[in-house]
Amino acid sequence: MIDAALRDGTASRHSMFELFARRLSGGRRFGVVAGTGRLLGLLREFRFDDAELKYLADHHVVSRETLTYLENYRFTGSITGYREGELYFPGSPILTVEGTFADAVILETLALSVLNHDSAVATAASRMSIAAGERPLAEMGARRAAERSAVAAARAAYIAGFGATSNLEAGRTWGIPTMGTAAHSWTLLHDTEEDAFRAQIAALGHDTTLLVDTYDIEKGVETAIRVAGPQLGGVRIDSGDLAIVAAEVRAQLDALGATGTKITVTSDLDEYAIAALAAYPVDSYGVGTSVVTGSGYPTAGMVYKLVARQDANGGWIAVAKKAQDKGSQGGLKTAFRRLDRGIAYEELVEIADGFERSATPADYPDARALQVPLVVRGEIDTAHEGPQGVAAAREHHLRVREELPVRALALSKSDPAIPTVFADAGA
Amino acid sequence: MIDAALRDGTASRHSMFELFARRLSGGRRFGVVAGTGRLLGLLREFRFDDAELKYLADHHVVSRETLTYLENYRFTGSITGYREGELYFPGSPILTVEGTFADAVILETLALSVLNHDSAVATAASRMSIAAGERPLAEMGARRAAERSAVAAARAAYIAGFGATSNLEAGRTWGIPTMGTAAHSWTLLHDTEEDAFRAQIAALGHDTTLLVDTYDIEKGVETAIRVAGPQLGGVRIDSGDLAIVAAEVRAQLDALGATGTKITVTSDLDEYAIAALAAYPVDSYGVGTSVVTGSGYPTAGMVYKLVARQDANGGWIAVAKKAQDKGSQGGLKTAFRRLDRGIAYEELVEIADGFERSATPADYPDARALQVPLVVRGEIDTAHEGPQGVAAAREHHLRVREELPVRALALSKSDPAIPTVFADAGA
Repeated sequence: MIDAALRDGTASRHSMFELFARRLSGGRRFGVVAGTGRLLGLLREFRFDDAELKYLADHHVVSRETLTYLENYRFTGSITGYREGELYFPGSPILTVEGTFADAVILETLALSVLNHDSAVATAASRMSIAAGERPLAEMGARRAAERSAVAAARAAYIAGFGATSNLEAGRTWGIPTMGTAAHSWTLLHDTEEDAFRAQIAALGHDTTLLVDTYDIEKGVETAIRVAGPQLGGVRIDSGDLAIVAAEVRAQLDALGATGTKITVTSDLDEYAIAALAAYPVDSYGVGTSVVTGSGYPTAGMVYKLVARQDANGGWIAVAKKAQDKGSQGGLKTAFRRLDRGIAYEELVEIADGFERSATPADYPDARALQVPLVVRGEIDTAHEGPQGVAAAREHHLRVREELPVRALALSKSDPAIPTVFADAGA
Repeated sequence: MIDAALRDGTASRHSMFELFARRLSGGRRFGVVAGTGRLLGLLREFRFDDAELKYLADHHVVSRETLTYLENYRFTGSITGYREGELYFPGSPILTVEGTFADAVILETLALSVLNHDSAVATAASRMSIAAGERPLAEMGARRAAERSAVAAARAAYIAGFGATSNLEAGRTWGIPTMGTAAHSWTLLHDTEEDAFRAQIAALGHDTTLLVDTYDIEKGVETAIRVAGPQLGGVRIDSGDLAIVAAEVRAQLDALGATGTKITVTSDLDEYAIAALAAYPVDSYGVGTSVVTGSGYPTAGMVYKLVARQDANGGWIAVAKKAQDKGSQGGLKTAFRRLDRGIAYEELVEIADGFERSATPADYPDARALQVPLVVRGEIDTAHEGPQGVAAAREHHLRVREELPVRALALSKSDPAIPTVFADAGA
């Protein structure tokens, strides 16, 4: 497309793309924006290197003119968007990317890849975090996601309310608290379960968590307390009917005097399983597969659409795809979340007449403005990047989640918690 | 674990880990191994750099002794496994990793991340490829997978029978044929649909594929043929009821004399949608979301378990986890696919008494041996890496898929196509 657009001159038309979701996957009641800080970091490095250009040239993918364009590529446009950690609803203008057509269209795959993945994980993670209530949640799913996605997933889960990750690379890159766990191979490595427990306590002290289900849970718990004493930090259970087993293990621990020893469970948990365990004596959850794969919805289904552009005379016109099932809404959008006594009741999206935003927060005193500048004429706002961006996103998420109406917290499939209302500024 | 194992001396115990799947996700009838070549490439670079070691030291994650171990880490063990592209069934010993406990356990997350993701994609892709029959399939899902996973997904889809990808990085890295497509933004960028089509033809010639559903499909097809003439290469439809629309568009194209113009469809296809379109005039499919996310099963659910190790006296013993729902089968395994007149009827897994394989292909003249050496005492077999590894894996997959019984080709949920039979060599 860039090749053909450079040829016919349309590549330089000033354009505005919008990244949004037509619907919320899986009948979710809200979505969580995640990946923004990661996207900005990737945008900072977004260049075409010699090996890449050589491949495009050798395989005649694009013309020489396009190769020169790519060689010099540097995003000099602007991006406005929802803060990372913010909630979103169908039609929320999550990102608005402005620049020449070529400069902005080339970011489509990158922006969608990052936000679709990270938001899918964050949305699932937020539901799990709501289901877990005050009990700590740890992300332990690295092995069930591709090796780099796993790091991004740990980051998204933390933003959406998880407290820690077993992914050390996520700890190093994004400043997320990390935790570890002993695997069954640790027990199997030793000649007896008791040897394994003794070695773990010698290395990590009595505050460690022993995995007690390699052979027989009841014997495992008995051995654990015999070896560690009643001051043992915790036991982990990774198989069986967790509700029943947790109750049995709690009773056994209490009978052995280990009333302070905590119970962690970890077997194929998702938000529904976590909710079902609320009434049972579980102290913390470790979640793997379901969080890193978006609990059944591994992509958020966001799209990136041209919504406005210059015409041949330099005028500014809104554009939209007309397909009934996959249409889009043209024009520059300004978004507000309207609140009644602090509780959200509407996602208001005002569509501007032309290139300039026509609505301001002052127009809606009951509303919170949702968009912030992320990139201004090529300058990336560093506040959203790196560990500080992650910390800010988590704080923002936990704060704005409090604005959700109670019905938004249920796990069953439903309509979005609040409606999205489009308002035409010209009307 | 490594920290504690270095402390109590068990880190150096010779160990054997097995990577396998307890079941096939989603009632699939077979699984497809993918990611092996990628794993070997990552293993070649698997080191701990200064920044990583500094993080582990600064955060007191491991002891000084362990830091030294990690600093010098280099895998010097051996890996035997199924060829990439091979089919697998529950309990198939997909990889067997031999080394000291520390050397082998440290690869757990990497091996599982790569194989779980890539095999999930390849398994879904193979089903789509079977459903598509002779019609070409292109992978176009980069925007619905995290940015690096997307490249791995394109690779896995190609191994499992897709013919091309829109992911240029996958083309560059893995030698996969690439293709491109015009988006709706291309049409919307231009003042009229006709302008967009003329510009595309000027850049790419008459053999290109025009996207005809931005405004009105019937008018789009009429404009496309008026502009390009009846020698137009193809049209793409990305919305609506594809079966009905394809039939209408075919009739319209034929009436306009464009009998050779092909129809590509691309809207939310999965293996079921592809199968349902078999009787309609569609020439090729572009698949996005469903293939890169494993069509509902984004991870293959493989695990990495210690199956044998030295004991304190240097003897060799099989070990296994006993949990009823998540048990494992100890011991070194040798795997064969038994064939009757070229059709598979059994996955035979022979369990050795000790450290040496006891079964050889000569023991089962009707069988194909499934395991090949991938790494021998630290030396990686380069035949499996890079583009040559991908080409070999694809060829292998398409060949061994012919061995499947007819019932394996149905898409509905079922038991595995062939049973896995464990045989005890000592029995």
